Amino acid sequence: MYKDMTKEQLAAEKAAVKAKYEEYKAEGLKLDMSRGKPATEQLDLTDDMLLHCLDGAHISETGVDCRNYGVLDGIYEAKRLFMAMLEVGRYEIIVGGNSSLCMMYDSIARAMLLGVMGGKKPWSKYEHVKFLCPAPGYDRHFAICESMGIEMITVPYKEDGPDMDMIEELVSKDEEIKGIWCVPMYSNPMGITYSDEVVRRFANLSPKADDFRIYWDNAYCVHHLTDTPDHLLNILEECKKTGKEDMVYIFTSTSKISFPGGGLAVLAASEDNINFIKNQMAYQTIGYDKLNQLRHARFFKDFDGIKEHMKKHRAIIEPKFNAVLDALDREIAPLGIGNWHKPNGGYFIAFDGLDGTAKRTVQLCKEAGVVLTDAGATFPYGIDPRDRNIRLAPTFPTVDELKKAIEIFCTAVKLASIEVMEGNSDL
Amino acid sequence: MYKDMTKEQLAAEKAAVKAKYEEYKAEGLKLDMSRGKPATEQLDLTDDMLLHCLDGAHISETGVDCRNYGVLDGIYEAKRLFMAMLEVGRYEIIVGGNSSLCMMYDSIARAMLLGVMGGKKPWSKYEHVKFLCPAPGYDRHFAICESMGIEMITVPYKEDGPDMDMIEELVSKDEEIKGIWCVPMYSNPMGITYSDEVVRRFANLSPKADDFRIYWDNAYCVHHLTDTPDHLLNILEECKKTGKEDMVYIFTSTSKISFPGGGLAVLAASEDNINFIKNQMAYQTIGYDKLNQLRHARFFKDFDGIKEHMKKHRAIIEPKFNAVLDALDREIAPLGIGNWHKPNGGYFIAFDGLDGTAKRTVQLCKEAGVVLTDAGATFPYGIDPRDRNIRLAPTFPTVDELKKAIEIFCTAVKLASIEVMEGNSDL
Repeated sequence: MYKDMTKEQLAAEKAAVKAKYEEYKAEGLKLDMSRGKPATEQLDLTDDMLLHCLDGAHISETGVDCRNYGVLDGIYEAKRLFMAMLEVGRYEIIVGGNSSLCMMYDSIARAMLLGVMGGKKPWSKYEHVKFLCPAPGYDRHFAICESMGIEMITVPYKEDGPDMDMIEELVSKDEEIKGIWCVPMYSNPMGITYSDEVVRRFANLSPKADDFRIYWDNAYCVHHLTDTPDHLLNILEECKKTGKEDMVYIFTSTSKISFPGGGLAVLAASEDNINFIKNQMAYQTIGYDKLNQLRHARFFKDFDGIKEHMKKHRAIIEPKFNAVLDALDREIAPLGIGNWHKPNGGYFIAFDGLDGTAKRTVQLCKEAGVVLTDAGATFPYGIDPRDRNIRLAPTFPTVDELKKAIEIFCTAVKLASIEVMEGNSDL
Repeated sequence: MYKDMTKEQLAAEKAAVKAKYEEYKAEGLKLDMSRGKPATEQLDLTDDMLLHCLDGAHISETGVDCRNYGVLDGIYEAKRLFMAMLEVGRYEIIVGGNSSLCMMYDSIARAMLLGVMGGKKPWSKYEHVKFLCPAPGYDRHFAICESMGIEMITVPYKEDGPDMDMIEELVSKDEEIKGIWCVPMYSNPMGITYSDEVVRRFANLSPKADDFRIYWDNAYCVHHLTDTPDHLLNILEECKKTGKEDMVYIFTSTSKISFPGGGLAVLAASEDNINFIKNQMAYQTIGYDKLNQLRHARFFKDFDGIKEHMKKHRAIIEPKFNAVLDALDREIAPLGIGNWHKPNGGYFIAFDGLDGTAKRTVQLCKEAGVVLTDAGATFPYGIDPRDRNIRLAPTFPTVDELKKAIEIFCTAVKLASIEVMEGNSDL
């Protein structure tokens, strides 16, 4: 443990680590662990979808020519895939275009400009609009709020989800709080899944604002990495039990199932919410790409097809997660200079270093040719108050690249930690 | 001519027309001329795009794996298709998803929430926002404004475009006027193309608002129906000549070239506008469906490929336009109870009946099994002040269906006209 070392021992360790770091730096590497991007090998898994799914047959089960206009909320066989995946009903779902980020953005844009069901007026007509942001979280969620001038309030994480005491207290008192961002399963970047109790407390929220919504971004609901995957309670079902089924919007996509660039995005919510949203959406478009919906429905056939497909993804990315976790266990754990959660699924490992080391670690990695997500990016306004959280995205590089990259990362963590400890000891 | 008939002659004509109408009604037909929807035969023209364009090759010319994330503004080979089509440069274009309506809506939503380049604040921060709406026009343009509470000011049409005197006067005086909707070629529903003088006067506008934009929906730029097509001046070029190249957003799509449900939408504008818009768009999405962009680029190869393809569309729909125009010439022209423009392209014929007859004509058609676009739909707020304009959409039905439908339409026009004339003569 670094903290048990004498000043001299630490100085010697620093010299050794620094030498190692300079060696890596001299190699002139170029490695990227910055984004949750599937590897080429993963994309290949779905290639057949592009070849034979539409051979002269463009008519959906319900008789829709998917080449032509119409069907705002998506064709039935595509809905059926996601009804099973999200455990929602036929009238509780909209299948959209290729981006769930776009669906979330559009949903907030509609709330700002047109208003939410049950609201007194569009959000943009309020003096202030606020969102609760459990953090570390997904930088693109926070960016949407920032772009629209929505004030973000950071909510810390506990082991089984965000701090519910704080959330219950805040939403019950402040009408300006209109929403909360959640990635409830294999969260980005923490990799944790909300416990049953946390989900039930969400379903029991009593927000002061009539037009408060939980933005439940279930992006990783089938992205398991072990034989003992996490289980997430169905928030819509739980909200029905409390009579608050209009309080939640659920999002997911096939970006990391089929293709990030050409998948399907999904919005699920209560039937009343869906009907309200469809009426608003009709101003924006006549319909999303139904040919791509038909491709997906025919390729996967049913939810079992998706589950089987995800096993192939797991076979590719599990070794990559293990390469990162093994290195952290070996190199960092004995030194007491970092914490992380071993995720059962998802796309990220979140590393918490000593306070004040994250920016420096990312900088050191960058100078040695390893690109990480910017330090701070996992917090609202890009500011990590303790400067300690770093998101690691292991899926895109090869296992060999990854082993190299994580060696460099561990070296950078050590160096940054010693620097901080030396600084502290000087005080 | 009905107007030259005596009261008795008109009554006799009415009895004859009514008898004919009752005959049609008894047939119990079901025909739809309401929307500008390509026919199944037209969709078949592009089927090969869905089969062989992506055989194991998903890498764009510039090395992008189109299956993965990235490339917000579209892949280069897709841009190249539309650069030629719209006569704009590489940095003046964004290729998006499957709906230009969506691109237009999003563009106005961004203006409302985030603001337009050069504007003092987002439009939603103004007390009032107004749009000029040349009418008859496209109902979905007007619906976007209505949904966002943008006040619409109707501008009448002349033979070669909207009333430019009125437009010049209004925009120069009123800072609340932030935009104008234009369908400059084969306009929806008038079928007219703006003259060179009209385009130049647009490029010379001196709006009071710094953040005024011309929404130039060039949806029918290659949708010719004759060997002597109309020609539209390049508005972006003309605006460059006047130094006002930031004043215009150009939109188009392949909805009526490839597939309405699975085509590509395009936004073109000055390089500064494009860069500004890309920065704003980055909050909404990581990128549109690049696989579909690659499909289109490989299928059409180049702009000549699109032009050749459009000849096949023309071969299918020209006889349908002729069926409608022939019937109007034969049945209506001699009676002096209607006017229309014979379009050289596009998707519509706009019929102007006697004042006060449009709603009644549409109602009579509906009762006889022929669905038309609602009377008034071509005007802001759905209100045609003279109740005379009806949009005819001849593309979707077969020629035989269309001949029947237009017979019924002509009969309904006659009956509605006589009813109005009798009413008038009673005054």
